[in-house]
Amino acid sequence: MKLYDLELSGNCYKVRLFAALARIPLEIEAVDFLGGAHKKPPLIGLNPWGEIPILVDGAVVLRDSQAILVYLAAKYTGETWLPRDAAGMAEVMQWLSTTANEVQNGPASARLVDKFGYAIDKADTLRRSARILPLIEAHLADHQWLALERPTIADCAVFPYVALAPEGGVSLSDYPHIRRWMSRVKAVPNFLSMPGV
Amino acid sequence: MKLYDLELSGNCYKVRLFAALARIPLEIEAVDFLGGAHKKPPLIGLNPWGEIPILVDGAVVLRDSQAILVYLAAKYTGETWLPRDAAGMAEVMQWLSTTANEVQNGPASARLVDKFGYAIDKADTLRRSARILPLIEAHLADHQWLALERPTIADCAVFPYVALAPEGGVSLSDYPHIRRWMSRVKAVPNFLSMPGV
Repeated sequence: MKLYDLELSGNCYKVRLFAALARIPLEIEAVDFLGGAHKKPPLIGLNPWGEIPILVDGAVVLRDSQAILVYLAAKYTGETWLPRDAAGMAEVMQWLSTTANEVQNGPASARLVDKFGYAIDKADTLRRSARILPLIEAHLADHQWLALERPTIADCAVFPYVALAPEGGVSLSDYPHIRRWMSRVKAVPNFLSMPGV
Repeated sequence: MKLYDLELSGNCYKVRLFAALARIPLEIEAVDFLGGAHKKPPLIGLNPWGEIPILVDGAVVLRDSQAILVYLAAKYTGETWLPRDAAGMAEVMQWLSTTANEVQNGPASARLVDKFGYAIDKADTLRRSARILPLIEAHLADHQWLALERPTIADCAVFPYVALAPEGGVSLSDYPHIRRWMSRVKAVPNFLSMPGV
């Protein structure tokens, strides 16, 4: 099972982090991102979106980091990281939507501007960050984990770009509950870090 | 089971559409959106995000339209609309991420500007629409449905804001495969429409 990967991508890190926590072996193939390998064949054939990560497991090819977490959790971990009952699955799903939209367009995009020079409206990314981080903070004021009462792929999906927020000029100093949750994530056995986390 | 609803919201329509197709009875409660009822108690207590739809089913309270689709499909339709095997679930999940991010920030947000006067950068919504619609078009050039070989909640999640794109000044005339897919969705038994679709 191969992961097309970029070390500095938080979306790729989501997958590496979860695979480490769940002890799922991955073959990591580094993508020449600066050279635009993800925009050219053969990778553009695997993912027309022109993005990474991409997971290839036999005939299964997945292009979205949240979908990759769902796949790995369902295939390799039973219900440990992703429950299959309606309410539990939906609770996790709420956070997958949050990370796909609010986190991606907030702190993750602020970091794309500051660290990689993307031509994105920085003020918009800061406005979005200033909306979503207090919502996550308030949720974590009375929850140990984002969904359910245990670590799930919801935590793996949200953690990377929240932890990397300072690299986009988004401080976490006003969010003590988020910082405590980050410490809890880092204390999960087999936690894997990345530069900036 | 109660849906806090706004008739003109495509996110609410996702839920009404799927419930109609799957014959799931919903109690619809119209929210005074112009009066800001979703930003005040009691709704802000149900959904701190200050958004609708909200689904309440006994002790289960869900705030995200994708999560509501997952919940209803898993609880009431077996595997018909959402498979539970790893690969099938992940394939559907890819499109739930796409609608949460690219569709929401593209055509859905263009419509928010034109139809509701939201202070969003219109040019940004048009750029995002011009990226995502060709990707969906290319996918539908050789697929009848977005995920798997049958209608799933992926189609219900993406359909509303693609069908409503012209209300945001985003024409679908260059996307014949999308238009044919929309016709297929509309032909599914028990299809439900909304103003603008």
